[in-house]
This record gives sequence, C-alpha cells and structure tokens, in this order.
Amino acid sequence: GACHTMRMPQIETVLMTTLLPLYDLEGRTVVVIDVLRATSSICTALSHGATAIIPVASRDEAIAMRQRGYLLASEREGMRQEFAQMGNSPSEFSPERVAGQEIVYCTTNGTQAITAASKGAEVLIGAFLNRTALVRYLAQRAQRDVLFLCSGWKGRFNIEDTLLAGAIAEALVAERLFTPSCGSTLAAMDLWSLAKANPLQYAEKVAHRQRLESLGLGASFYDCFRLDTCELVPRYANGRITAAGDTP
Amino acid sequence: GACHTMRMPQIETVLMTTLLPLYDLEGRTVVVIDVLRATSSICTALSHGATAIIPVASRDEAIAMRQRGYLLASEREGMRQEFAQMGNSPSEFSPERVAGQEIVYCTTNGTQAITAASKGAEVLIGAFLNRTALVRYLAQRAQRDVLFLCSGWKGRFNIEDTLLAGAIAEALVAERLFTPSCGSTLAAMDLWSLAKANPLQYAEKVAHRQRLESLGLGASFYDCFRLDTCELVPRYANGRITAAGDTP
Repeated sequence: GACHTMRMPQIETVLMTTLLPLYDLEGRTVVVIDVLRATSSICTALSHGATAIIPVASRDEAIAMRQRGYLLASEREGMRQEFAQMGNSPSEFSPERVAGQEIVYCTTNGTQAITAASKGAEVLIGAFLNRTALVRYLAQRAQRDVLFLCSGWKGRFNIEDTLLAGAIAEALVAERLFTPSCGSTLAAMDLWSLAKANPLQYAEKVAHRQRLESLGLGASFYDCFRLDTCELVPRYANGRITAAGDTP
Repeated sequence: GACHTMRMPQIETVLMTTLLPLYDLEGRTVVVIDVLRATSSICTALSHGATAIIPVASRDEAIAMRQRGYLLASEREGMRQEFAQMGNSPSEFSPERVAGQEIVYCTTNGTQAITAASKGAEVLIGAFLNRTALVRYLAQRAQRDVLFLCSGWKGRFNIEDTLLAGAIAEALVAERLFTPSCGSTLAAMDLWSLAKANPLQYAEKVAHRQRLESLGLGASFYDCFRLDTCELVPRYANGRITAAGDTP
C-alpha cells in the first residue's frame, strides 16, 4: 500500500506571557494556563452552571459591566476587590452564586493571557481541575498544533503552570498523537514526571503558596491542585468563555 | 550568646535573556551561561592560555578589531564566518592558536548576554567545563546574591543552559551557602536531578544537537558537556574577559 508520511501535530510551551511575541499562534490551538487561580476558577464557575465568563482587561471596564447588571469577579494583588461579588478563588464560584449567570472576570494575570491568546485558531482554558477532559478534547481533535500558554507570574516563570503543561503534554505524547517540539515542553514533561506521584506535595515549593496563605487564602491553593473535578473544556471565542460543545 | 539572624544569599535564574529587563542586577554576581557554545569556548580559550576575550556585539566591530591585529572568533547561524580565524566551537580554541593571545569574540547569543549582564556587581562565565571551579569560587564569596543568566535560544528557553544553572545551584544549596529564591531555580535543580547521572544522555533531547550535527559540528556538542576540564572562572570587567584572580 502507499506510505503516507503524516506530520504529527506538535506541542509547544510558552513558559510566560512575556515570550508570546516570539511565537506564531495562527492556526494553532492555544491552551491558556493560570493554575493559581484564574483558569481554576473559570473551570469551577462553568462546571457550577455559569453560562459564560467574560474576561475584561481593566478594572474600569469591569465596574461598567457591573453597573449593567453583570455578576463581577475581580482580583488585585490576590484579593477580591470591594466592588466585586467574587475574587479569584474557586470556592467563591459556588453553584448558588453562579448557576445561570454570566460573569465578568478581571484578574492580574489570567485575563490578560486569555485575550493575548485570541490569535489562536481555538483558545481553551486549562487547569488541573479539567486536565483529563482537556486531554480527551485535544486527543479527539489531533490535527492542529497545540501551544500551551503559561501565564507565569509577573512576567516570569512559575512552577505550577509549567507542571500542568507537562501533565497534559505527557498524556498526549503517550497516546502518540502529538510530538513535543521544544525544550520547554520536554522540561515541563520532566518536571511533571517528578511531581505526578504527589502533585500537591511537589507544589509545596510553589512560591505562590506562602503568598496565598499570608492573604488567608491557603485553602484556595489546594482547591487549584485537585485533579479532574471538572468535566468541561472552557473555550474562549468572541469575547466569551463557554463550555466547548455548548452553543453559546 | 547573641543570636545573629543572617540573611542567606539567594539564587535566582533568568531562563532567557528576553526576561532580563524584569530583573535587578545591581549588587549581584551574574553568571552568564551559553553552554552551546560561547561560554564553553571562552572557558576553553582561557584555559588554553588566551590572555583575554573581548566580546563584541556586531560583526562590523569584529572586522575592525581584526584589522587592528586581533585574533577573531565570529559565528553566525552556527558557522564560523569567513573573515574570522575561529568560529564558536571549543576545539577551535587550541593552545597552539590562542596561547598568549587576546581574542575578539562575536556570537549570535552569547556575547549579547555577556554585555547585557554588565550591570551586575561581578560578571562570571559558566559552562559545564568549569562547573566545579565556579561552585568553589561562588562558595568562597557567598555574600552577594547570585543570578544565573541563561542565554536561551532565539529569546526562548533551552534545556542545556537551565541544566547547568541547576547543577551549580544544587551544589551551592547543598553546602547551605545559598537559598533558591524563585521557581526557575527550583525547576532547574529538579531537571539537573534527572540529568546528573548521565548529563550527556539527558542532553540528547537538546534541540540544538541535531542542528549542530546538520552543520557537521556534532563533536563540538559533546565537547560542551564535558565536566570540570577547566579550572578557571572567567570574569567580565571593563570590556574584557579574563581569568578571575589574574591581574589583567
């Protein structure tokens, strides 16, 4: 029979948004990762029945949307802002509060990464909470190259986002559906190989943990390292994040 | 007796020069790392008797210096440039060629990183070749914070520079002289923990290897992963790199 030389789709990992200008997003599926805590909260909100998340970049825009009646999540320096109903902790997005609601969302890191990713052919939201759902979704659509966009922290590297990129990449590479095409993906997979027996223990070294504890938000740290509590894959399109597969 | 609360000096790692604007170099010892191949070649040249290396940023500047009689090392896209006596491979810096000479050095990545580092209180050159010498040097002067500046590749992450940062950090942390103060240092140490049993085997996954082999420079890849063949610590000051401890 004829021998088809298939190009296997590739996985690249952008370790922090600072590097985004060096990458070409066009035609790729971009997975935005901000484990602590935007993408973890978005997964929680949608799985608790929120109909959409509307990321906004500025506080002014968020306040204007609140005046138009939207439920508002807004965080600054880790804390809920007083004009908002919710901050940036998954536990704040309870079913009682969010079911059936559209939520306007403004955070330091996360919403910037999401809007920066919008040049991608498809923009998805990744967290430990929906890791397996995301692996399944990407595996079923293994044509496009995938780019993991880690939010990082103040423009720099962080461990938790990189670990998750490694966790997803490892599963996709193990299924022989994708090939890692850069050193950062290989490094992320290696870090995950060290962490996967006990991700929460490994994550103890995450700098952000002390920071959240000092803010009285230690529990929200652990909430962000739960595996596979969420069956959804949030997708960003036309300014809104909804569950992929749903008709918005 | 009185209890002195000593602040332990810290280690930070900048994974690629792209991030350098986010870091404050003032008062720190900066270790520049470009394993493939500038910092490996610089270590080789000095240990083979070169009296100084003069890094220059531009090809025009390099050519002008050659006309003034300097020995010239210049590389572009991995290859020696025709107007230069040497390219960027350690093996080109043989004792016969370099002993007693001052060498003008122009490379794609490495010399840019070195000049960018010059805001540091002290600027050192790191390679696998001088890893132990560098650890000893830093251990003997454990007052200042240390910042590893990995050159990266085209502004992005590379494995080999990060591995070396991890290798040096691990030794300094094990001696309880320094504390790792950022996620990138911890990640680098973890990657080194996976690689150290067989660094060369681990480095097989380095993207740059195929690139060097395709240029007929495969041997120079292996030359850059030799451990501790060089007893010197090159130091950059006043536009020149000389062996630390020597009077220039």
